[in-house]
Formats: sequence, C-alpha cells, structure tokens
Amino acid sequence: MSWQAIDNEVKSWLKQARKLILTKMDSDLQVSTKSGPNDLVTNLDKQVEQFYISQIKQKFKHSRILGEESCKEEGLLSFDGLFWVIDPIDGTMNFVKEKENFASMIAIYKQGKPYIAYIYDVMKDRLVWGGPALGAVYCNQTQLPAPKQHALKDGLVAISCPMVLANYRNVVEVIKASSGCRMVGSAGIEFINLILGKHCAYLSYLRPWDFLPGKILGETLGLSVKTIDDEKVDVVSSSVVLVATKSAHTEIIELVNR
Amino acid sequence: MSWQAIDNEVKSWLKQARKLILTKMDSDLQVSTKSGPNDLVTNLDKQVEQFYISQIKQKFKHSRILGEESCKEEGLLSFDGLFWVIDPIDGTMNFVKEKENFASMIAIYKQGKPYIAYIYDVMKDRLVWGGPALGAVYCNQTQLPAPKQHALKDGLVAISCPMVLANYRNVVEVIKASSGCRMVGSAGIEFINLILGKHCAYLSYLRPWDFLPGKILGETLGLSVKTIDDEKVDVVSSSVVLVATKSAHTEIIELVNR
Repeated sequence: MSWQAIDNEVKSWLKQARKLILTKMDSDLQVSTKSGPNDLVTNLDKQVEQFYISQIKQKFKHSRILGEESCKEEGLLSFDGLFWVIDPIDGTMNFVKEKENFASMIAIYKQGKPYIAYIYDVMKDRLVWGGPALGAVYCNQTQLPAPKQHALKDGLVAISCPMVLANYRNVVEVIKASSGCRMVGSAGIEFINLILGKHCAYLSYLRPWDFLPGKILGETLGLSVKTIDDEKVDVVSSSVVLVATKSAHTEIIELVNR
Repeated sequence: MSWQAIDNEVKSWLKQARKLILTKMDSDLQVSTKSGPNDLVTNLDKQVEQFYISQIKQKFKHSRILGEESCKEEGLLSFDGLFWVIDPIDGTMNFVKEKENFASMIAIYKQGKPYIAYIYDVMKDRLVWGGPALGAVYCNQTQLPAPKQHALKDGLVAISCPMVLANYRNVVEVIKASSGCRMVGSAGIEFINLILGKHCAYLSYLRPWDFLPGKILGETLGLSVKTIDDEKVDVVSSSVVLVATKSAHTEIIELVNR
C-alpha cells in the first residue's frame, strides 16, 4: 500500500468530516463535560471519531487505533501494521464558543515509525499534511519551506494559560524575552502556527493525540519537539511538550531549567 | 450627506486598503520600532493611513482626523463636522509575524456623537460595521443579533499579556472564574470576538484609535464598554478598557475592585 493511497483516503475522510461539522455545528450541538467544567466534549467530537474509526476498520484492516474520545488500543511502537492516532476535534472549547480555531487531526505510524500526519484547520479549510513517507510537508497544495530560525526575541510564543498563571518553570521570563505571548486554545492550531512560521515556540501539557500529528509534521520540517526537560517526548504518555525553532528551543530550555 | 453615502465611500477605501496590504505584505514590508522592540510600525501602516487621510480630505472636506501613525487633530467631541479616528493596521505585531489576525479600523463621529464604525479583519475578509447612524451592526452582509448574555463561567475572556503577568487588579481570578483565557494580540480582532459572541470579555490598556471603533459597534449591540473602575470611557484619552457582556461585566467589576 503506497502512502498516496492512504493519503487519498484520509483526505476524503477529512473533507467529509468538515462537511459534517459545518452542517451540524449551529443546529445540532450537544455539549457535555468530561473531567471538569472546562473540559468539553460534544456529540460531533464523538460522531467524527466514530466516522474515522469505521473508515479505518473498513479500508485498512491491519490497523490499530488510539482516539481521544473512545478508542484506546495499545502497541503504537510495536504493532507491525498501521497505527492511527486520531483527535476528531482538537480545541473543543474553541469549537463550542468561538466556532473556529479548532482542528481535526490524524497521525499514522507504520511498523512503529512516524509515517504521515494531518492537521486540519476546519474553518479556514487549511490542511497541513505530510511526514517522513513523503519527506515533505504541505499546506493544502503548497509545499512548505522549513520555518525560519527566529530567535526568541523575534518570535511570538504560545504558552498554555495554567502554566502562565502559575509561572510554571519560569515561563514568565520566556514571555518577557519574546516578542509576545498568544493563547489560542488548540494544540493543533498552535502546531500549524509553528509550522507556518507564525510563532517561534509553543509550550503546553499535551496528551499523545494532541501532539503526535504535530510532532510528525514539525520534525519533518526541522522543528524541535522535546519535553520541557529537553528530553525525547514519550509518544505513548502525556508530557509537557516544547515545540520550537531550534534557536528558540535552546534559549527556552536555558530559561526554564535555571 | 446620508450615512449610506459615507458608508459606500468607506467600504471602497477598506477594500482598496486590503488589496494594497495583500499585494505588498509578502514582498515589500519594512518594519521599524516605535516606543520599544515590541511596538512595531511598517511602511504599510503608514501607506494605508495616508491613503485614508487623502481620501477623507478629498471626499469629506469638513472633517478632522485622528490617526495612529501621523495625524493627531483634536476636537473629537466639539467639532461640528465629521471626526474620523483611524487605525490603519491594528495588531501590527500579528501583521508582521502571523500575517493574519490584524484589523483595519475607522470610527466616525458626527457633531461629537458616535455615528458609524468599521473593523475589518483583513485576512478573513470579515468586515464588522454599523453604529447609531443605522441602529444596527453587520458582519459583511448579515445583520448581527445582540451577543448572548454569557455569564463569566460560560465565556472565554481575553486579557492583555502584561496585565496577566502582573496579576493586575486580580485578573488571574477573573480568568479562573471563566471558561478560559485567550490572547489574540489585536484590539480590533478582540472587539470582533465580543461582537460575534465568541468571547464574553476583553480587558486591555487601549488608546482611542484602538477602542473607539469597537466601542461604537459594541455599544450599538448592548455590550458594556467601561473603564476597569466601571466609569465612562474618556474617548480622547487612553484607558484600561473592559468590554464585556452585561452579566460578565458585573462579575468582573466585582472581582477587579475587591
């Protein structure tokens, strides 16, 4: 099976998911909470995840799946087929409140290795996709250059709100050394901002389905994706993840490990 | 002179400014700093402001103008003609780094009273416009309803980064009482977020050209636009401005004035 065959399928699923979301988001949205009042899930998160799962099971039989809402199969690094990591709607709070700035994401591992990934900014119809299978990353039809190596002082940083409020690991100094801080509320959208060179760093506590698609895409373009302790990110657990240009990475690691 | 005649002119200027920005932003952008390394201005800020000023002077002779970059005429509340407040590119840092999330804004006062205003999200081609002259606010062609009265716990808040870092007036408690915090980096885009009901409150230190267009539009739709001390905003000076739904306003004023 070529990556092009997989790619054709996945892109058609993403477009169908977009259609479903656009059709139902204003008229048929049921919101409930998970771990707390600000951890939301909707019927559309679940429907889109079920749609992806049913498509994968139908089209790619030798697959395992890890999904945010329902499906928690294991063996990402040992399974000899395709391992799919799916986040149907990343940034559900934005989806509910802003009706924009959320992403639908899929990461594919093949024989335990990163293969191809997708982050879809649904409302902007902006699909960032690619990976080692093709040795490149695209935004829609345009191949992307590696992001410019902005130093911290010349770049915007995105840091999750709880970390800023607690000044976790000195992040206030990171912000003061940068061009400014943005809070977007979706890991997928933040990865896109890094990949497109809009921001120079992103720091947040993330779960595998939040960071794996962006990790595959970002690393293909030379971005650094490490833990806040400058270690390799464990792809099967949650971590405090720092995504950054190489130069901003060095400066931030120094500031947060003082 | 009817408001429709003014509206026709202004909309054509905004579209022309958009064309100029889209044509030149990637190829012909010169960035310099104003008060500090993160206070940017570009050749396009200046060109767009000059374009608006020349059009106003040509088409509306009995006018005065207050512009961010160059033109500081006085008499907003006493002048008996049209008083124009212009911010050619609000969110210049975003314009330079993100190439999106910036706005071109115009507020018009007539005989000292708010008349009509425009906030144009240039990259999304999303124009929010209206005011007392027509008793309504539109997003492009669609008339907008009053934003829903979200309570603070059910809404996203946007608070400027320096205020959050300093926990100015207890804003950390405001964030903790809300659905979450976003930092967008443009007052114009934030006013749009409030007007479209995406966020329930915005708090920032703002200058007249930052807040007057949004104040005219927001108040037309029943949003509260006050100082952080719950006083009337002085339209000719800079202030810490709180824009909010009426219910979020009450809760925030209580939290920041404890």
